[in-house]
Amino acid sequence: MVSPLKNDRLLRALRREPIDTTPVWVMRQAGRYLPEYRTTRAKAGSFMALAQNPELACEVTLQPLRRFELDAAILFSDILTIPDAMGLGLSFAQGEGPQFAHPVRSRADVERLGVPDMESELRYVMDAVRLIRHELDGRVPLIGFSGSPWTLACYMVEGQGSRDFATAKAMCWNDPALAHTLLDTLAKSVGAYLIAQAAAGAQALMIFDTWGGLLSPAAYREFSLRYMARVVETLKADAHARDLPVILFSKGAGAHLAEMAATGCAALGVDWTIDLADARRAVNGKVALQGNLDPAVLRASPEIIRREVRNVLDSYGNHPGHVFNLGHGITPEVDPEHVKVLVDEVHSYSHQLRSR
Amino acid sequence: MVSPLKNDRLLRALRREPIDTTPVWVMRQAGRYLPEYRTTRAKAGSFMALAQNPELACEVTLQPLRRFELDAAILFSDILTIPDAMGLGLSFAQGEGPQFAHPVRSRADVERLGVPDMESELRYVMDAVRLIRHELDGRVPLIGFSGSPWTLACYMVEGQGSRDFATAKAMCWNDPALAHTLLDTLAKSVGAYLIAQAAAGAQALMIFDTWGGLLSPAAYREFSLRYMARVVETLKADAHARDLPVILFSKGAGAHLAEMAATGCAALGVDWTIDLADARRAVNGKVALQGNLDPAVLRASPEIIRREVRNVLDSYGNHPGHVFNLGHGITPEVDPEHVKVLVDEVHSYSHQLRSR
Repeated sequence: MVSPLKNDRLLRALRREPIDTTPVWVMRQAGRYLPEYRTTRAKAGSFMALAQNPELACEVTLQPLRRFELDAAILFSDILTIPDAMGLGLSFAQGEGPQFAHPVRSRADVERLGVPDMESELRYVMDAVRLIRHELDGRVPLIGFSGSPWTLACYMVEGQGSRDFATAKAMCWNDPALAHTLLDTLAKSVGAYLIAQAAAGAQALMIFDTWGGLLSPAAYREFSLRYMARVVETLKADAHARDLPVILFSKGAGAHLAEMAATGCAALGVDWTIDLADARRAVNGKVALQGNLDPAVLRASPEIIRREVRNVLDSYGNHPGHVFNLGHGITPEVDPEHVKVLVDEVHSYSHQLRSR
Repeated sequence: MVSPLKNDRLLRALRREPIDTTPVWVMRQAGRYLPEYRTTRAKAGSFMALAQNPELACEVTLQPLRRFELDAAILFSDILTIPDAMGLGLSFAQGEGPQFAHPVRSRADVERLGVPDMESELRYVMDAVRLIRHELDGRVPLIGFSGSPWTLACYMVEGQGSRDFATAKAMCWNDPALAHTLLDTLAKSVGAYLIAQAAAGAQALMIFDTWGGLLSPAAYREFSLRYMARVVETLKADAHARDLPVILFSKGAGAHLAEMAATGCAALGVDWTIDLADARRAVNGKVALQGNLDPAVLRASPEIIRREVRNVLDSYGNHPGHVFNLGHGITPEVDPEHVKVLVDEVHSYSHQLRSR
């Protein structure tokens, strides 16, 4: 059996309970900025080989926790495991983003897609979750995650990354029924995927909607938010997932926080283009907030990193319900020592702030 | 002498005067989606050779007006002419974005920069403005433009395009005095550049702040908005520029519209991630708004383009002060016939809307 949780700051913050110190983790904390990650990735051969090997995925998940006093681990995986399991053939060309061998364009393409079987086609993910939980031994909670239905659809229709995902948007406009069929299959898949991660041991769940912010408000509601809300509903109806806090993160969607908070999620990820004081007002205390330091600040000096960390903590203030994070993933060129500066400053300054 | 203006819808909308039909133009309307543009560009040899040849720049400026009933012409040029004139060595690699041979990184680099002489180093721009005004013969007004100080600084410090302009941001954090020296020189240059365009015949002026939206609210105020406000102030103090409406456009800065409107500009460009009804409320009738169709809509069918055009017009409503545009530049793969559909629908539907 697994050990009881020794550090529950993250879960308490997500439940908006009082805490003496703000918890902190970093999006993409298991990543290329760490030399030990690059060594393990080189051993695996490719990014997908790393993600599909539970022992190596566990190893890289734990690497940042050995260096920094992080308050959470997040499963090392990719947001595109679901479409890969659907047979689209995911690969990562050197220095390029993700590519699908078989993009989804026609009704036949969409109708061919089924919800993957979580304990066979995506078993490697669940094995990684189980192994990480075992290895963490209760030190900090483990966050499971998925891409949002809309963000998965973006890559599946486009076939690769894009500045504007105009092909995916064109499907929404030219054949909305087809787009909705695809998003419906994806919402079912994301729901089943997150439930399986919960059953395997994940203790919080996050949905990354990287491309929701590319949509107009009306299109965001129709094609992105609606399906995240459906996933949250599915999770709330499941015995394994029901009690896990769910974090929704739509990058560039600062204008939609109130509507996102109404989905029943526990928390919202917030990027750095909105002040946390404004974000708190927008959600009116209904959910916790996670964020929101500009990741580019990690390129600045330790002194500036500390100042900007304090600014983010001050902007949220001494209220329950804050999880410190970057506003987007950490970038490869960051000095790991700067991450240590960030994590330590979050703890020491928030402890002062919260004891006032 | 130049002919009197036959179509003054744009200028009247920018002054928030009543109009019977909403004016429309399209960001990057002289661009690669037009086969005749590609032919002229091939003749010029390179993008910069095209921009630096007043006859060819005039030719491509007028091309979209021969096809579509646009209500404005916009000078064909690049946002990076100022740093090029400062000696940074601008080039455009095939299929890549802009590149500077000499990026600006040190205090010595910044102190070497001077305000370019507008009638020598940037004479090709002023010659193009004069020629276009002559050739337009009063048909529609001519919009002059510049990149914003912050957006110019982004490219100058980074040396090229970037997802996050982390090098430019790092300068702001690590050596804010240096960043402010650079931005001060750029604000003076942008002011002089737009005044020279006004003196040469531009009838409205637009400042493109493509990367303001990458900043946190505090950094946006300090490094982007402050310097646009200073440019507006400079323009208002000049006899040639004083009466020209100024349009500010910070992409992704929907949260800052009220502060932008307080600069003394006439209008704000608005991207498609905010509803125009909300944008109108934010600026409280103080400025006109220009936008905001998602450019990706031009990939949809004519029927959908018409529907989405009507949605944008309806979201603004029958109030003075709307200039229809995309929320960002038109992309190369768009069918020119779709632009015709857009322009014609703006005119016919807004005429109905405004006669109610």
